[in-house]
Amino acid sequence: MSHREAVISKLVDPQSVAVVGASTKPGSVGYVILENLVTRFKGQVYPVNPKYDEVELWGRRIKFYKSVSEIGDPLDVVVVATPAPTVPKILEEAGMKGVKAAIIISSGFAEAGNAELENWVKAVARQYGVRVLGPNCIGIYNAYTNFDTVFLPADRAGRPPPGPLALISQSGAVAAAIMDWAARRRLGLGFLANYGNKADVTEVELLEAFAADHRVKVITVYVEGFKYPGEARRFLETARKIVPKKPIVAYKAGRGGAAQRAVKSHTAAMAGTYEMYRGLFQQAGVVEASSVREMFDMAKALATQPTPRGGRVLVVSDSGGMGIQAVDALEALGLEVPEVPESIAKELKRELLPFAAVSNPIDVTGSATDEHYKIVLDALLPTAFFDMALIVTLMQVPGLTKNLAKYVIDSKRYGKPIAIVNFGGSELVQRFEEELEDQGIPVYPTPDRAAKALWALYKYGEVKRRL
Amino acid sequence: MSHREAVISKLVDPQSVAVVGASTKPGSVGYVILENLVTRFKGQVYPVNPKYDEVELWGRRIKFYKSVSEIGDPLDVVVVATPAPTVPKILEEAGMKGVKAAIIISSGFAEAGNAELENWVKAVARQYGVRVLGPNCIGIYNAYTNFDTVFLPADRAGRPPPGPLALISQSGAVAAAIMDWAARRRLGLGFLANYGNKADVTEVELLEAFAADHRVKVITVYVEGFKYPGEARRFLETARKIVPKKPIVAYKAGRGGAAQRAVKSHTAAMAGTYEMYRGLFQQAGVVEASSVREMFDMAKALATQPTPRGGRVLVVSDSGGMGIQAVDALEALGLEVPEVPESIAKELKRELLPFAAVSNPIDVTGSATDEHYKIVLDALLPTAFFDMALIVTLMQVPGLTKNLAKYVIDSKRYGKPIAIVNFGGSELVQRFEEELEDQGIPVYPTPDRAAKALWALYKYGEVKRRL
Repeated sequence: MSHREAVISKLVDPQSVAVVGASTKPGSVGYVILENLVTRFKGQVYPVNPKYDEVELWGRRIKFYKSVSEIGDPLDVVVVATPAPTVPKILEEAGMKGVKAAIIISSGFAEAGNAELENWVKAVARQYGVRVLGPNCIGIYNAYTNFDTVFLPADRAGRPPPGPLALISQSGAVAAAIMDWAARRRLGLGFLANYGNKADVTEVELLEAFAADHRVKVITVYVEGFKYPGEARRFLETARKIVPKKPIVAYKAGRGGAAQRAVKSHTAAMAGTYEMYRGLFQQAGVVEASSVREMFDMAKALATQPTPRGGRVLVVSDSGGMGIQAVDALEALGLEVPEVPESIAKELKRELLPFAAVSNPIDVTGSATDEHYKIVLDALLPTAFFDMALIVTLMQVPGLTKNLAKYVIDSKRYGKPIAIVNFGGSELVQRFEEELEDQGIPVYPTPDRAAKALWALYKYGEVKRRL
Repeated sequence: MSHREAVISKLVDPQSVAVVGASTKPGSVGYVILENLVTRFKGQVYPVNPKYDEVELWGRRIKFYKSVSEIGDPLDVVVVATPAPTVPKILEEAGMKGVKAAIIISSGFAEAGNAELENWVKAVARQYGVRVLGPNCIGIYNAYTNFDTVFLPADRAGRPPPGPLALISQSGAVAAAIMDWAARRRLGLGFLANYGNKADVTEVELLEAFAADHRVKVITVYVEGFKYPGEARRFLETARKIVPKKPIVAYKAGRGGAAQRAVKSHTAAMAGTYEMYRGLFQQAGVVEASSVREMFDMAKALATQPTPRGGRVLVVSDSGGMGIQAVDALEALGLEVPEVPESIAKELKRELLPFAAVSNPIDVTGSATDEHYKIVLDALLPTAFFDMALIVTLMQVPGLTKNLAKYVIDSKRYGKPIAIVNFGGSELVQRFEEELEDQGIPVYPTPDRAAKALWALYKYGEVKRRL
C-alpha cells in the first residue's frame, strides 16, 4: 500500500478525529456529528469550538478545544462543519499540525457558484499535503467503528449494521436514503462514502481503499457522471485491477435527455452518453445494475454466494405459477433452465408427490413438505447439470415449516449459488427469511429480483474468467 | 344482469353457505374453512358432516347437518371439501335442493389424471343447473363479508383489508402468497378468486362479476394460459366491454420455452405464444404488467388516481439523484418530462432556495422545507403544461416534516394523478407513507416503480380514448 493509499484508508477508518464546528445546539449539523462520534465512535474524538470549554452532554463531560492546533495528540482526520469562508484557515491549521486527511461537510463552494473558494481550499490542501473529502458532502459512515459524519439524526436516517457491502455515492441524499433503507432491512452496509463536490479525493481512490479492506466483499457505486477529463480512464484501470478479486456493482443514473440536463445541474458532472458508461463498465468488468434496489439485490448475492461455473439454473418451487415466473425472468436474462436428465427425473418421480412436476422447473406442489425440497436439492445440486439454484418457498402452503431453512442452508455444501424467493408477510415468512439471510442465503420477494441476482453472479463469473 | 351473471355474483358474495366436509380436526382443510366462516363470515353458515351433531368450538356451540338436503333454509353456495370420489353425489344433492352455485376445494380430479371424475362432476352440474368453481382451488376470499374458503390459516396467509382491488388468479398458491403480501402492506384487496381446474366457471365470468360490483375499482388478473378453444375470443369481447368503465391489469406468466413447458405441466393450459397474449391484451385494452408486484403497483394507482389527459410528467425531488433516476425511468417508458416554461421558472427561482434547480426535474434540494414542495405543486400542477406528477420525498433530509403529506394531499384538487417515491425505513418515513396511502396517494419505494404506475395511468387513458 502506497502512502497515498494509506491516507485514504485512514480517512474511511480513522482512530482519532477532531470535529471543527462541533455544536451544542440540538439538530444542527455540528451537533448531530458530535453526538454520533461522542456516543458511538470507538476511537478518540476531539470537539473543536472556541465558544465552549467543557459541556455536559449525553450524560458525560465533554472537553472542547479552541482550535485544531490546541489538540496535543495526533489526529487521523479533521471533520469540518463550519461556514464555508472559515474552511481554508482551518485546513491550513490542520496541515501545519501534520494532519493528513480532512472531511469537509460544509457547503457554499462550487455547488453554490463559489468556485474561487473551492480552488483556495484545493490550493491549501495541496500545499500542506492534506487530502480532502468534499466539500458539500455527508462524508463517511463506518459501521465497524461507528465513525459517522452523516449529519442526519438516526430517527431520520437509520444506521445499518456492519457487513460486507461498501457504497460509494455521488449523491448525499441518495446515500442517506440507502442507509435508512439498509438499516431497516438489516443489510450489512459496512461502509458508505459520499464525496460531494470532489475537490480532491475521488471515487477511484475510495474504490482503492475499499478494495484494500478485507471486510469489504462487494463495492457498490452510485454515479451520475464523471467530472474531470481522464477520470473515466482512471476508473477503468482501477476497476480492472480490483474486479478479479472483488466484485464492483455500479448504477449510473441519468440516461436519457431530460435526465442528463438534470445531472448537469445537480452535480455539474459531464453526463456523457449512457452508452459510454455502459461500455466503460463492460470493459472494466463492473456488473451494471439498472436501479439502486437492483444494485443491492446483486451485491447481497455477490457478497455471500460462490461464483458459478456457468448459467444453468435449477428452479424448485412449491407453486407452479411462481416457478413459471422464475423461468420467465431467468430466460429473459439469457440464463438457461435445462431439463432434468431422465434417469434422475425417474428417481424424483418415485420420491416426490404423485402430482409433482419433475422437469425443470420442479414443482413440488402446494402439498409439499420440507423433505421434498431436500430430496430435490440433494439429487440435483451436486450434479454437473446445474450451476445455480433458484428456490421458491411460498410458506403459505400448509406442509412447510421453518426446518426448510435448515435444508437450504445445508445445501451450501454443494458449493453452488442459491437464491430464495419468498413472498408474503406473516411472522413465519419473516422468521424464515431472517434465518436464511443470517446464514448467508439471499432472499428476494419476487422471482425477477432473484433471477437478476443470479444473473449478476453469472456475469461476475464471466468477468473473472475473462480478466 | 342476466340470471347467469346473478349466480356468479352470488358465488363471490353469498349470504348463506353450507360447508360440506366441515371438520373439527385442527389444521385440516375442512377445519380452517369452518373456522374462517364461523368466526368471521357475516352471513349464515351451515356445517355439514354426518360424524357430528353439535360441537363446542371457538367458544360457541356449532350445529352440524348430516347432509345438504337436511338444511331447511335456502343456500347461496355450497362449499365442498370432501374426498374427490364423494363430490358428484354431494353436487347432485345440492342441485336437488335448488342450490345454484358450488365451490369445490377438493383435489384429485383432472390435475391428478382423473379426467373422468371431473367430467362426471361437469355432467351433474349441467344436469341440475349448478355452477361450479373449481375443483382443486382455494376458491374465494371476500374481504367485505369475510366469505373465505381459503384453507390456509391466517398465521400462514394473512387476510387483506377490504378495498378497491379484485384478483382473479389461475394459481392457488400465487393467490395465497398475494393475500399474505397484501395483508402485510394493508393493500385493499377486496376480492380474490381462484378457479383451479376451471371445470365450469371461467375467469371471464369472474371478470363480469367483478365488473358489476361497484366496490371493485380495478380488476387484476394472473393468468398462465387459456385452456379451451374460444376462451381467448370471449376474454377479448368481455374485457373490451369492461375496460371503458373499469381498468383491468393482467400479468401473463410463462413466456419463454422452458416456462411454457412448465405451464403445460402446471395447469394443463395452452400457453400459446407470449406474443399472442400480448396482442390480445392490447386489443382488449387490458394494461399489461410484467410481474405480480408490478400488477399491484399499477392497480394501486389506477384505483385511486384520475385518468391523465396525456403523458407529460412533472418531477419534483429533494434529491437531485433521485430526480434523475425518476426521469430515466419515465423516459424509458416513453413518457415526457418537459421543461418548465421560462416565466414560471423565473418565479420559482425567486421562491425556492438559491441552489434549487427549477427546470424539470425540479430539485428543491436537501435543504428544502415542506413549503417548497407546496410552492412547486401550486405553481405547476394547475397549468396545462403537465398531466401528472412524480414526487420524490426523501424524508431523511433535515427540513421535511409530516406536514408535507398534507400539502401533497391538498394537491389532489388539481385533478391530476400523483405518485410518491419514498425510500427508507425510519418511523417518520413509515407514518408519512401511511397517511398518504390512507388519503389515496400511492407511494412507491423506488422511482422505477412509481414511473411504471404513472405509465399504467397514461396507458389506461389512451385505452379509454380509443375504446
